[in-house]
Amino acid sequence: MEIRFADRMQHLKASDIREILKLTARPEVISFAGGLPATESFPVEDIAAAVHACCDQDGASVLQYSTTEGDPQLRAAIATRMNRLRGTAVTPERILITSGAQQGLDLSAKLFLDRGSTVLCESPTYLAALNAFKVYEPRLVAVSTDDDGMRPEALAHALRTEPDVRLVYVIPDSQNPSGRTWTLDRRRALVELAADAGVVVLEDSPYGEIRFDGAPLPAVASVADGRGTVVYLGTFSKVFCPGMRLGWVAGPTAVVQKYVLLKQSADLHTSTLSQRIAARYLASNDLDANVARVIEIYRERRDVMLDALDTHFPADASWTRPQGGLFVWVELPRGIDARKLLERALERDVAFVPGAAFFPEPGHDNTMRLNFSAMPPDRIREGVRRLAEVLDEMLAEAPAVTNASA
Amino acid sequence: MEIRFADRMQHLKASDIREILKLTARPEVISFAGGLPATESFPVEDIAAAVHACCDQDGASVLQYSTTEGDPQLRAAIATRMNRLRGTAVTPERILITSGAQQGLDLSAKLFLDRGSTVLCESPTYLAALNAFKVYEPRLVAVSTDDDGMRPEALAHALRTEPDVRLVYVIPDSQNPSGRTWTLDRRRALVELAADAGVVVLEDSPYGEIRFDGAPLPAVASVADGRGTVVYLGTFSKVFCPGMRLGWVAGPTAVVQKYVLLKQSADLHTSTLSQRIAARYLASNDLDANVARVIEIYRERRDVMLDALDTHFPADASWTRPQGGLFVWVELPRGIDARKLLERALERDVAFVPGAAFFPEPGHDNTMRLNFSAMPPDRIREGVRRLAEVLDEMLAEAPAVTNASA
Repeated sequence: MEIRFADRMQHLKASDIREILKLTARPEVISFAGGLPATESFPVEDIAAAVHACCDQDGASVLQYSTTEGDPQLRAAIATRMNRLRGTAVTPERILITSGAQQGLDLSAKLFLDRGSTVLCESPTYLAALNAFKVYEPRLVAVSTDDDGMRPEALAHALRTEPDVRLVYVIPDSQNPSGRTWTLDRRRALVELAADAGVVVLEDSPYGEIRFDGAPLPAVASVADGRGTVVYLGTFSKVFCPGMRLGWVAGPTAVVQKYVLLKQSADLHTSTLSQRIAARYLASNDLDANVARVIEIYRERRDVMLDALDTHFPADASWTRPQGGLFVWVELPRGIDARKLLERALERDVAFVPGAAFFPEPGHDNTMRLNFSAMPPDRIREGVRRLAEVLDEMLAEAPAVTNASA
Repeated sequence: MEIRFADRMQHLKASDIREILKLTARPEVISFAGGLPATESFPVEDIAAAVHACCDQDGASVLQYSTTEGDPQLRAAIATRMNRLRGTAVTPERILITSGAQQGLDLSAKLFLDRGSTVLCESPTYLAALNAFKVYEPRLVAVSTDDDGMRPEALAHALRTEPDVRLVYVIPDSQNPSGRTWTLDRRRALVELAADAGVVVLEDSPYGEIRFDGAPLPAVASVADGRGTVVYLGTFSKVFCPGMRLGWVAGPTAVVQKYVLLKQSADLHTSTLSQRIAARYLASNDLDANVARVIEIYRERRDVMLDALDTHFPADASWTRPQGGLFVWVELPRGIDARKLLERALERDVAFVPGAAFFPEPGHDNTMRLNFSAMPPDRIREGVRRLAEVLDEMLAEAPAVTNASA
């Protein structure tokens, strides 16, 4: 039987990269490919205690249906924490618990996008956000981005000239994949330009607290100060643990109520048990202390990765020096195809993600994303060394081809 | 700032019924309104043991990201169980774990529906399915349905005459809201007609195992026997517990792979911890025995509700006598508006859901859904008595109006 699927399915293809990366599940592979938090960073004992408290004290209620909006105690704890760390002024009523920040992306696209409407995003930007958006068949337009964030003049131009812009999607803190962090000035410029254009800012901040030097920066949602509309997507995946799929949307009340409608038909509510576990954990433990521990682990790994890149990588490659987060972004010498590099790296049991998939437009074949959170320091050092080895071979083999395709 | 939402949001409105029902959270209210399983039916002790085993033996891995497809052990257990109880022949590879069956509905609509394409459904049908579908802006067309299921001639006619039909959506077992169960003949007719028309059958079976007399019937997916395409939505919500949000999609491999793509951008995966808890519970406990216990509880409540209806309700009302599930469906005397009945019932602390919302088309104001799973027998008896009291008053007050509006 020939099945008629929705038109949107034409835009969604199983990633061939994902297929390649399935090969990397072997334990001997040094993987810089995923975005996995370090398993050893999870507060396992404290979570187990919270789980036991749920079972012993909350009883059957943690197993029953609950409200779409989410656990009241958890929403209150999130509001308090966001306001303290990110400079916002949200109330619990303005928070909806989601099944991870990924659901926040899906619901945002559902709420704001029609076929053919435009999303402005950073260049590069988060791959899984692009995939979430594509389901709703919008135009995805990258705005020129430098180490400080989107260039205001480029953003202003795009807002003026692109048709039917509905969202400016940004990851202002230690971005995935680039590792870049927006300056405060750029955050302010973003809010002003978007407000003037009447366009919603979608702020995705999974790494806002994972900052190696200094306190977290104020969220874009906090610099808005009543101007325009900013919807903030938060997650516990990088500061607590990702497996329970706990994220949240924070925004103006009228907007969050529409998210609630969509969440209700998407999955009714997020796991009652997961929410209670997190609420109990937050009530009885110091999440800040856990974040500090995560930062210690990741700072060392970032330093080791940057040091190994400095030592082994060729002079005509360049890379970011992230202030936080999980990723280093590398521009390889022009003409080097990161997909080819991956094929050969896998033969030496090293994996990463070629960068082209992080752009809405074609090209950028000479870019790659390296994750440093999931591997211990010695394996990071060895993995970068092997990558450099392959890269040197490729450069030695085909300098002519390199120039021709540059 | 005037925000431009997606066109689809025009079709989604906060339900005024839902707002009314928020008033029913008071403990003194006898609620026939929700679809909550009896909290006392949850195997709390055994689930707690499974939770502890996860924490003690699986360690940090239950807190980490996992695959979109779902926990292999859980998928295998589901396949074995479905095949044994529902006559299917699915393999674990053909199962995707979802965040409740509600996510199965959302993903199904995402996968198959474009704006303006048609979904055929029972009359009445599941309210939250209609809401999930509406997000994708299809035409929803009810097919004439009697106590045995959709009428084959009506289905054949709709398949022949309605434009661009993509799905036939059915709840063949103890349907929500009507409590009806399809006969085997009707299941076969459905599969044949849909296969001939090249249309996918979406079989939603949350209550398939909650059957008061006799074994579960063969799933529609099992009578298909290679003809046409049936996608089956399952859930643990009614046989285990709903709070962890665990459901699944079972279908042909090529179709399930597309669901996986959509699930990935919707929420990456269902909670690793929830899946492990369910897998460990299934490995160490007899879910059949728990289902038998649930059935005992619900059978008594159904009997009490039917008995109370027989005793107290007027002769010109009629209602279903469900073989399973959680609901009785009532047709009130013509001219009685169930919304008005609800308003007055709430004054006497009784709640239910007026039936009109369960139809894609307007009308059916004289119908109501009564849930019998969530209240103990004595409260069911008392609640039905009070409803009948209000109904008698309404009939006595305005017989002329009744006739005029009939």
